[in-house]
Amino acid sequence: MEAELITIGDEILIGQTIDTNSAWMAKRFYELGINISRITSIKDEEEDIITALNESSKRSKLVLMTGGLGPTKDDITKKVLCNFFETELVRNIEVQEKIEKYFQSRGREILETNLQQADLPKKCTVLHNDLGTASGMWFEKHGVVFVSMPGVPYEMKGLMSNEVLPRVKQHFILSKLYHKTIMTEGLGESFLAELVKDWEASLEIQAIKIAYLPSPGMVRVRLSAAGLDYHELKNKVDKKANEFIKLVPQYVFGEDDIAMEKAIGDLLLQQNKTVATAESCTGGNIAKLLTAVPGSSAYFLGSIVSYSNAAKSNLLGVDESSIASFGAVSESVVKQMATGARERLKADFAIATSGVAGPDGGTEEKPVGTVWIAVAGEERVFAKKFQFEQDRGRNILRATLAGISMLRRLLEGNLELG
Amino acid sequence: MEAELITIGDEILIGQTIDTNSAWMAKRFYELGINISRITSIKDEEEDIITALNESSKRSKLVLMTGGLGPTKDDITKKVLCNFFETELVRNIEVQEKIEKYFQSRGREILETNLQQADLPKKCTVLHNDLGTASGMWFEKHGVVFVSMPGVPYEMKGLMSNEVLPRVKQHFILSKLYHKTIMTEGLGESFLAELVKDWEASLEIQAIKIAYLPSPGMVRVRLSAAGLDYHELKNKVDKKANEFIKLVPQYVFGEDDIAMEKAIGDLLLQQNKTVATAESCTGGNIAKLLTAVPGSSAYFLGSIVSYSNAAKSNLLGVDESSIASFGAVSESVVKQMATGARERLKADFAIATSGVAGPDGGTEEKPVGTVWIAVAGEERVFAKKFQFEQDRGRNILRATLAGISMLRRLLEGNLELG
Repeated sequence: MEAELITIGDEILIGQTIDTNSAWMAKRFYELGINISRITSIKDEEEDIITALNESSKRSKLVLMTGGLGPTKDDITKKVLCNFFETELVRNIEVQEKIEKYFQSRGREILETNLQQADLPKKCTVLHNDLGTASGMWFEKHGVVFVSMPGVPYEMKGLMSNEVLPRVKQHFILSKLYHKTIMTEGLGESFLAELVKDWEASLEIQAIKIAYLPSPGMVRVRLSAAGLDYHELKNKVDKKANEFIKLVPQYVFGEDDIAMEKAIGDLLLQQNKTVATAESCTGGNIAKLLTAVPGSSAYFLGSIVSYSNAAKSNLLGVDESSIASFGAVSESVVKQMATGARERLKADFAIATSGVAGPDGGTEEKPVGTVWIAVAGEERVFAKKFQFEQDRGRNILRATLAGISMLRRLLEGNLELG
Repeated sequence: MEAELITIGDEILIGQTIDTNSAWMAKRFYELGINISRITSIKDEEEDIITALNESSKRSKLVLMTGGLGPTKDDITKKVLCNFFETELVRNIEVQEKIEKYFQSRGREILETNLQQADLPKKCTVLHNDLGTASGMWFEKHGVVFVSMPGVPYEMKGLMSNEVLPRVKQHFILSKLYHKTIMTEGLGESFLAELVKDWEASLEIQAIKIAYLPSPGMVRVRLSAAGLDYHELKNKVDKKANEFIKLVPQYVFGEDDIAMEKAIGDLLLQQNKTVATAESCTGGNIAKLLTAVPGSSAYFLGSIVSYSNAAKSNLLGVDESSIASFGAVSESVVKQMATGARERLKADFAIATSGVAGPDGGTEEKPVGTVWIAVAGEERVFAKKFQFEQDRGRNILRATLAGISMLRRLLEGNLELG
């Protein structure tokens, strides 16, 4: 089955906002077995919206819109939908009460424009938005389903998960699809593919599709198959996934889109161990990533972000003479940072980083992108030098992922692979 | 003048790739006074490409395509363009020589499929690509200009800057466009609009458009106008922007899409002050955000991420009895955290956070989303309690933005507004 997405809003057309919603939505529909055949971005203008709705509904049985539902005057989608579906706005009391509660619970004054968000087209099924004040709307016309959602990404995601996807699954007859994702890190996509070449060749006979999906620091390997019997699909795909894991266990850190920070949290919980970090060039990003995981307070004790040299000595006990002799970006300093954090935060393990994130601060000997990373355990401290690239943001991200990757290998007794 | 973008490639429609090209291109055209009126993403399929070209060229005088020019079989754009423009592929010797050189200089073997990239439609003007092997193409048909470019972002950007934009400027008579963005924080979009209602009404007479663009923790206010005289446009828009700033100065933190962390960095540099953070629920995210700014080592000294209570006492000197009496999420503790970080990191200012990010850890008295934030300066420590929502990620983000917002207000002498 095919569907189309329409994003409404000038901010995308003038390049002020990158359209990340469409990719997220396309992925969710793809997982359901629905292919997005076209994505159209248009302005907040009646004629453009009507044209797009007419064109899309000629081609597809499902048309999804985002955007243009805010309380300000430039947002006209609701009015246009009334014209398109030949209906009118009526005040929805249930939605009005939710909006009133939403403002009350935040202790904020409510304006008439806010209440007007409870005015919704008579002909639509209202999709309740628990994360904001703009409701979703579900219309049916001449056998085509039209869904309108707010463009704010987390509100759209909430509506998609709670309202739109369950209704779509119920409304359309979809062929079954089964996916299994294996999360790997430590090896590039082409090298990984080379290692499992023969196994990959065996997938085609079973009509299993494979995709290597690289993102910074990792490669997701996704197996998928379509058919009528879900259990049969699941059995054959899971069997192949297990074969893959047995071929390259050292590079696999989890399954089903688990984040690396979550996988490491699980390892720490299993081993009943705690971790701390000492961060210079990553500026707190490792701590931020580890604490993004719910329940991380069970194993994450804290971090000392020692951006200045004084902080490295005073808070982590790094020898001032080491900084003077070797520089802050050095094996000696990063190892002392790791042991300092481990001791002062009374943790079982510590990760430390020190590097030149850029764009300034590079030298001939230590150019931008040079990063030392250490992990300290009970018995030993390991350190490794990385040479990343020119971009500050990417260097911080890659150092962060390399640091938690080293901890993972230490926890799994595989550090020599790092 | 209006133009349309068409992106060709399955990877966008299955959500594997976020379309960042379109935003980049739209911004460049917007600066030239060309409005992108529609962005369409379609599959690598002949019928879809032909339909999109027909539809776009009925609406616009300029149609830009990216994607589908690679050497692999799934890339069919060139063949489809030959059909659309009723022409054929011919080998372009100049391009062939460039491709041969490209491979030679990289010491890579050249395949026949690579050489076929020099086969280009007879009727097009070839746009030379210095960064890859797929050439750009410029066609004209019935008064409409069609441009095809590779989808690889840096190749597209090179072709746009060196070939496409200069030719577009020469080919079309363009009206000028000017826009000004004012960055605000601390007030929702509808409340802000309410405060400046009369001023907003005055924009229409001058044909100035306004858009409120909310994102977590802030609202960007964009003014724009089109006309023939750039200086006249700039004068009238800047004048209105200044009026806006004078109406609500306390909510304005900058202009022209500056990030809040950058605005605060600039304030600290101007005032020659330094900052440190003590983070519990934000887990290092404030430090991470502040250090994302190049050159932040000039004013950011470090952070103590005290996730455990022991870390709060040992590393920040928080009184254990305060934690026992009031709990870690309390005014007393967060204030001690701020002063502790300020003293131990020898900073002029410190931001501290302590809260229940969720999903666990909430109580009736302190439900999920309760966050205390403090900022400490030379003379005083200010603390404020926030009640955010249920989502862990958003609570961390909002506490982070609220923390740096409080610092901004302290630096600007406006803290009572926080």
